[in-house]
Amino acid sequence: MFSKNFKLGLLGGGQLGRMLLQAAIDLDIHVKALDPDPDAPCAKIAPEFVVGSFLDYDTVYQFGQDCEVITIEIENVNLEALKKLRSEGKKVFPQPEVLEIIQDKRVQKQFYLDNNLPTSDFILTDSVEDISKNLNFLPAFNKLGKGGYDGRGVQKLSSEIDLPLAFTEPSLLEKAIDFDKEIAVIVARNEHGEIKTFPTVECVFHPVYNLVEYLFAPAAVTESIHEEAKQIAIETAEKLGIVGLLAVEMFLTKDGKILINEVAPRTHNSGHHTIRANHTSQFEQHLRAVLGLPLGDTSAHSKAAMVNLLGEDGYTGEAKYVGMNEALAIAGVYPFLYGKKITKPFRKMGHVTVVDENLDSLKEKVNIVKEKLKVIA
Amino acid sequence: MFSKNFKLGLLGGGQLGRMLLQAAIDLDIHVKALDPDPDAPCAKIAPEFVVGSFLDYDTVYQFGQDCEVITIEIENVNLEALKKLRSEGKKVFPQPEVLEIIQDKRVQKQFYLDNNLPTSDFILTDSVEDISKNLNFLPAFNKLGKGGYDGRGVQKLSSEIDLPLAFTEPSLLEKAIDFDKEIAVIVARNEHGEIKTFPTVECVFHPVYNLVEYLFAPAAVTESIHEEAKQIAIETAEKLGIVGLLAVEMFLTKDGKILINEVAPRTHNSGHHTIRANHTSQFEQHLRAVLGLPLGDTSAHSKAAMVNLLGEDGYTGEAKYVGMNEALAIAGVYPFLYGKKITKPFRKMGHVTVVDENLDSLKEKVNIVKEKLKVIA
Repeated sequence: MFSKNFKLGLLGGGQLGRMLLQAAIDLDIHVKALDPDPDAPCAKIAPEFVVGSFLDYDTVYQFGQDCEVITIEIENVNLEALKKLRSEGKKVFPQPEVLEIIQDKRVQKQFYLDNNLPTSDFILTDSVEDISKNLNFLPAFNKLGKGGYDGRGVQKLSSEIDLPLAFTEPSLLEKAIDFDKEIAVIVARNEHGEIKTFPTVECVFHPVYNLVEYLFAPAAVTESIHEEAKQIAIETAEKLGIVGLLAVEMFLTKDGKILINEVAPRTHNSGHHTIRANHTSQFEQHLRAVLGLPLGDTSAHSKAAMVNLLGEDGYTGEAKYVGMNEALAIAGVYPFLYGKKITKPFRKMGHVTVVDENLDSLKEKVNIVKEKLKVIA
Repeated sequence: MFSKNFKLGLLGGGQLGRMLLQAAIDLDIHVKALDPDPDAPCAKIAPEFVVGSFLDYDTVYQFGQDCEVITIEIENVNLEALKKLRSEGKKVFPQPEVLEIIQDKRVQKQFYLDNNLPTSDFILTDSVEDISKNLNFLPAFNKLGKGGYDGRGVQKLSSEIDLPLAFTEPSLLEKAIDFDKEIAVIVARNEHGEIKTFPTVECVFHPVYNLVEYLFAPAAVTESIHEEAKQIAIETAEKLGIVGLLAVEMFLTKDGKILINEVAPRTHNSGHHTIRANHTSQFEQHLRAVLGLPLGDTSAHSKAAMVNLLGEDGYTGEAKYVGMNEALAIAGVYPFLYGKKITKPFRKMGHVTVVDENLDSLKEKVNIVKEKLKVIA
């Protein structure tokens, strides 16, 4: 693959693709990206950028013609085209069958159950009526089977009063977990079966928007929880048989159990800090995994936090960044801007990685960054 | 500058530019690069790439028209055009006057002398006749005043026998130093006068080609040598008044003295390891410096070595990489390929950063990499 004729196809040209492109430059991997948005974060920096829908069969099939390997940065892509391309000899990682399981949260949950992977109780529902029959299951999260992303497609139902908020499409009711922490492990697996995990991290979600608001790495949990979370991630990757990266989000319950919340078959927000805090970043690791290369050392060289830089509430329009100078003046503060032209409330516009060996000062820096750095219009 | 209208002009589109572009993506800085080679390492990944000569007045002047700030990745550029652009309100960093001193090794040496900066003895020469008058000064290095780069323009003259190798153009004779080590410090200075240095490194040069063959960071020298090298680098940057990065290459003599060998007013081969071993890389630091941003934390989080990946002797043609899988399989080994299509004997085709906390195993990995990883045609 270290040749001028090799091409890696990438479905999606958002921020995850952008950081993948940066890693691909190190190994001189020619990446061709597909995204419907001509102003997508990858548009200006991809060696090749095609405007088109990764959901459309013909577009994806045509796009893949001159690629040796095809990968994704978003899981909602046209799987039929990917299957066709694979049948014609292309390597497609992660495999379409894995995406099929993960694309539909109902199938995903059933997969955990069938494979004895720990997850919270759930009920599949096809209508609001189905939900109203299961009021005793509340409080629960109502999750759309298909099409949810970044906080969309998830609705908390606390009691009967919330029924009007329930999804009318096929969805599931997931028992609300009284958790202590949300933790995540990113695991990589290549086609030779080599597997490596990144250290467990701890995510703090935005109370309203269900987005990672900030993250600490490593998670402040016991060694045995680290080890158990790692084993669950490895087992999930092996049972899926995935080639590529898998981000496994988990709940650590108040009584010390780990339950899988959901997984993403790609680079993930919970691994952004690895660019600055681990020897190998999740982006390089994804490349190594899908290209059949040996996996890199995932160990952390620094303690880190990651703060998502979300579009400030109340502002829509051309993005302006306030507080960059103050942020950059703090030792160990590294902003990553995604190059999105337009900001909207809570849109992911970038993230900030903070490194510091002292946990108190790490938290203090996180608070300063959250307070000073804003995206407005 | 964190706006869609801001443009940073970059003269040169080689590997230094390529790694600068990668760093610029983090801060979403729009970079426009100029290089005469349409296949230059920056060509495919620069948000904007212009084919043209950075030595040509009109080309550089036109190129700079829509840039707010102009910087370089190679020092042999057209200074008149840069001066004109600056007179019209553009920021040009490093400043043309600094480049003027450094472009001509004769002026550079004189600058050290005039500013009491330690350097080896030298004689300015305009002809072979001048050299033959100073045979008692040999063994010495004969260095071309202008136009040398990466080992070209330097010739060792051991005795009268070597006179036919001497340069006929204006050059200098520099007393050969009986040194213990070659060390280097990269220093950054922004327009507000803020200065930061990277830790001292130790360079091992190729015995024939006068290129950095490999490097260890930090240098195995005493704390007081570290401190003295740092102070010399800071003093040199301040006396030059440079805004941007300055790589200061020095000799550590056998009797413990530090002498400046030469400087480069830009990112440098002796700082490539900072991408993987220091919290802020030299490329991000250069951007911060020329953009007037606060400088980043230069401390190292890992011990590192860097091996240049030179085109194998005896091969010219389309580059092929041998041993990539073996190299990537070693923990802490990170190849960086520059995307040059054609390899030539001793052409810089990439580099490999190796990180390891244990010095013995670091050296062992360096030797494996040097043995296994080859660029052939």
